[in-house]
Amino acid sequence: MVGEDHEEERFTSEDEFKILIATDIHVGYAANKKHRCNDSLNTFEEVLTKAIETDVDFVLLAGDLFHENNPTREVFMGVSRKLRQHCLSDRPVAFEFVSDPSRNFASSNFDRVNYEDPNLNVGMPVFSIHGNHDDLSGKGLSVQDSLHEVGLLNLFGKFETIDSFEVNPILLRKGKTNLALYGIGSQRDDRLCRAFQEEKIKFLRPKEESEQWFNILLLHQNRPRRSNLRTTGAYVPDKFIPSFFDLVIWGHEHECRIDPQYVEPGHGTSGDGFYIIQPGSTIATSLTADEAIPKHIAVLKVRGRKFKSTPVPLETVRQLLVAEINLELESEGERVPKLSVRTDRMPDEKIVRDKIESMIAEAERTRGFRQPLLPLIRLKVIYSGPWTQFPPLNAKRFGAAYVDRVANSDEMIQIKTIRTREQEEKTQHTSVPQAEQNCSTVDQIVSDYFSTCQEDEKLMVLSEEVMSRSMSEYSNENKKITEVDREFKTAVENQVLVFQRDLIETEEIEISDDYTLDLAEIEKRLMKKITVATVSRERARRAELHPMDEDDMEVL
Amino acid sequence: MVGEDHEEERFTSEDEFKILIATDIHVGYAANKKHRCNDSLNTFEEVLTKAIETDVDFVLLAGDLFHENNPTREVFMGVSRKLRQHCLSDRPVAFEFVSDPSRNFASSNFDRVNYEDPNLNVGMPVFSIHGNHDDLSGKGLSVQDSLHEVGLLNLFGKFETIDSFEVNPILLRKGKTNLALYGIGSQRDDRLCRAFQEEKIKFLRPKEESEQWFNILLLHQNRPRRSNLRTTGAYVPDKFIPSFFDLVIWGHEHECRIDPQYVEPGHGTSGDGFYIIQPGSTIATSLTADEAIPKHIAVLKVRGRKFKSTPVPLETVRQLLVAEINLELESEGERVPKLSVRTDRMPDEKIVRDKIESMIAEAERTRGFRQPLLPLIRLKVIYSGPWTQFPPLNAKRFGAAYVDRVANSDEMIQIKTIRTREQEEKTQHTSVPQAEQNCSTVDQIVSDYFSTCQEDEKLMVLSEEVMSRSMSEYSNENKKITEVDREFKTAVENQVLVFQRDLIETEEIEISDDYTLDLAEIEKRLMKKITVATVSRERARRAELHPMDEDDMEVL
Repeated sequence: MVGEDHEEERFTSEDEFKILIATDIHVGYAANKKHRCNDSLNTFEEVLTKAIETDVDFVLLAGDLFHENNPTREVFMGVSRKLRQHCLSDRPVAFEFVSDPSRNFASSNFDRVNYEDPNLNVGMPVFSIHGNHDDLSGKGLSVQDSLHEVGLLNLFGKFETIDSFEVNPILLRKGKTNLALYGIGSQRDDRLCRAFQEEKIKFLRPKEESEQWFNILLLHQNRPRRSNLRTTGAYVPDKFIPSFFDLVIWGHEHECRIDPQYVEPGHGTSGDGFYIIQPGSTIATSLTADEAIPKHIAVLKVRGRKFKSTPVPLETVRQLLVAEINLELESEGERVPKLSVRTDRMPDEKIVRDKIESMIAEAERTRGFRQPLLPLIRLKVIYSGPWTQFPPLNAKRFGAAYVDRVANSDEMIQIKTIRTREQEEKTQHTSVPQAEQNCSTVDQIVSDYFSTCQEDEKLMVLSEEVMSRSMSEYSNENKKITEVDREFKTAVENQVLVFQRDLIETEEIEISDDYTLDLAEIEKRLMKKITVATVSRERARRAELHPMDEDDMEVL
Repeated sequence: MVGEDHEEERFTSEDEFKILIATDIHVGYAANKKHRCNDSLNTFEEVLTKAIETDVDFVLLAGDLFHENNPTREVFMGVSRKLRQHCLSDRPVAFEFVSDPSRNFASSNFDRVNYEDPNLNVGMPVFSIHGNHDDLSGKGLSVQDSLHEVGLLNLFGKFETIDSFEVNPILLRKGKTNLALYGIGSQRDDRLCRAFQEEKIKFLRPKEESEQWFNILLLHQNRPRRSNLRTTGAYVPDKFIPSFFDLVIWGHEHECRIDPQYVEPGHGTSGDGFYIIQPGSTIATSLTADEAIPKHIAVLKVRGRKFKSTPVPLETVRQLLVAEINLELESEGERVPKLSVRTDRMPDEKIVRDKIESMIAEAERTRGFRQPLLPLIRLKVIYSGPWTQFPPLNAKRFGAAYVDRVANSDEMIQIKTIRTREQEEKTQHTSVPQAEQNCSTVDQIVSDYFSTCQEDEKLMVLSEEVMSRSMSEYSNENKKITEVDREFKTAVENQVLVFQRDLIETEEIEISDDYTLDLAEIEKRLMKKITVATVSRERARRAELHPMDEDDMEVL
């Protein structure tokens, strides 16, 4: 047990909180990938079943439960279902909620924690904050608010103003142990950092016996410096965290650093420092070495003001193997062909294939019985020295052969070419990809065109600004093309139907009883009508349209 | 009591089902209108409280609970909240569910009706089918599926194949009364009509004592003929409904026809005919006389095979007054100015204002105490005869004066001009609106442009097809511009962040410790990188992109 040591003998297991800690579950990640579509939900289910198996009092999540703020219905229903299946039960909940729920859950219409609702049998309470993926965009509501409102979890740590706020802890009591849970849902790092610096965040503390509370802070922020351009560095330095905290659960960072790390008290501050647990994500959302560290959650035990954290390895997480080879170093004795084009069976292919095969073999050897069959593999192949004379292998084409053996075959190989200055100069004249020459950003293409086109070619229906934004909808990698298509299809159908009805109502088309009206003629009239109305509607809208909020961006 | 009369004496109140019937609640309708944004949810709450007050056994909804299949988070949470507040309780549920729930709710992961889930205290069960607004688009899931999955209502009547299917009834028993609920969620009228015609719909019936079941069918379809172009007429004629049904609850039609209407058995069929109750919507979604009929729901009592339906007036529905005036008829003795332009204080304005004032006065006189203050008013003003010489009044400008007195002031006045053939010929030469002359459809504008433009002006990033669809997203009246803007903003932010991270990872930008790097330079490099990646991503996507499903459309 770590922490203060006074009066240990007073506490028994009836005074002990057991808490399952997890974060960044990202349900919905890779939802449209063939092999990986169920990974995130499967591991979410594992987290919940582990909570039951380890018999914890509750589950604590530090943000990004969902990968998207606006998940598909399937993803939302998946999460709802798992919560209903595992968290609703007759299991007794043996701790008291002693703070004011109407302040902890101020944005909710239900003034109690879910396990105290007499109409819901909550056997495993979940407390959660929002992350940057399931953020408060859209009238201050996260997708997690929907789950809160139906009573499946307890979302806290929401703040309307982000420059200055009071953090009201959730106060829990079990036997003689008092637990204060402070949550701050994902904030822009810059602003939160400044708010900390300027002491504009007020952590409210229980008036009485404040020394007897074990204080936990949940954060969902950058932990290392992520920007050299901003004075804040776009992260929350440890030194800003008040030293009355005993433990910080750090979300957002995907690297698993499950062992508590001690942080000394800052210069000139009182207190005895605190610990940080950074559970890391339960799914790899990028193919990096950080994400390849085995994923864990933790069971935290708190007695009085002492705690102990036990890592719990996750068993359903897909394997991720990351490696790098430099052909120049790997190929001692290998003859590098003196060619400027690729031919069949070049030696780099064999080297890469051998490496991939050994990685697949390692994955097979080490795969746990609950892990999915196909591993994620990322191999960075460095072309340098004589290997830069000919074009590197085609990563996508090479990957295609592994489509049934590697879960991410299309992005398995990453190519990097390192040339000396001399080589660089020799290749100066070779062409950059065509796209790079002829294209600018979407916005610029649109803008350039309309600034030079003839008057009669200018758009009547949609503004240039609107057009450029619309197109970006389609070039947005986070939105599935099928989703936009579906929305579009529904939209067009609705529009046509509205006008068909409108036409009938205004009796502009006289339909004879013997159905002699020409379909083509109807269509023609409809089209004309739609066009006229679209124009007038768009004009009304353009009058309403405000320029976008020019919020400054930061590195996440 | 209507229905068969045998063995009446056997039944007592303990054998009586009491059911609240409502439909087309359209929560989310007018969600972005100033005065009306809460109307639909308020009346939904009234429906639920009426259910409790009238002490029914359950609520039966015939589709379009939501106005949109993809409602905003606020709307979804509003409905969830009302269901949780009113339907979860200790109220006893006194009827049995005797069919196989895994067949009635085949698409759900929970194999029981919500009130039999031991972890949910359901005091007021709701049974519902989906409408055309909350349809199954998107992997066969309605927004009502989300509510089903969290246990707040019971969604039934879903069919994967719509040309031929089996309808499995929900079988309920209370004392000696047996109730069979057949539901068919909204289908394309044409197809459903053909499926009926060709007898491809099979209504499963309890094997034993089939004569002892009271059979209810829930539909959400066009009731009158809605198309003269299609052989089916795009509606479901009464004659197709099998005569073993006792009662049909007809959703989709917004006109309130709450009194049961008897339908004689079809030619050559056995049986004794059936009744139709068409509750109509609980909110007016169009400004028509049909929608102005006072809105009702009904309490249905069923004992054995006899039923009685009692209309229940809704008290929270905003008043709708609809009228029409023909200036030529209204203005006897009035001097019509001989002008070809409008001037101040023309006599039509006074006539219209007087009429509107009298309608507002009537609304004030008749308003119930729970009805919202401002009425909906629709006045159709007909210009004919000498009144067509000058332009009619501007409906929007006229309405603006009523913005605080009428809930729909911007669409209060509807202008119709009726000219004789002679007058028509005289005005032939006057111009049609400019928009009509210069514009075609969005698609056509895009298509025309790109088929004629120079090679180097063609789009590199997005396909022409994609561009044209994207623009239509913005011209779709069902999607709020703020929503699209918000999505767009998030999308762009995400995209930039991904590339910023990517840049840092690939170390293409060397950041010195003293922050001397030029911001403009960073931006330039970012833009270039984004463009290259956008192009390659878009290319990959275009390869995947399928043409839209060319489903035939029909009038709803």
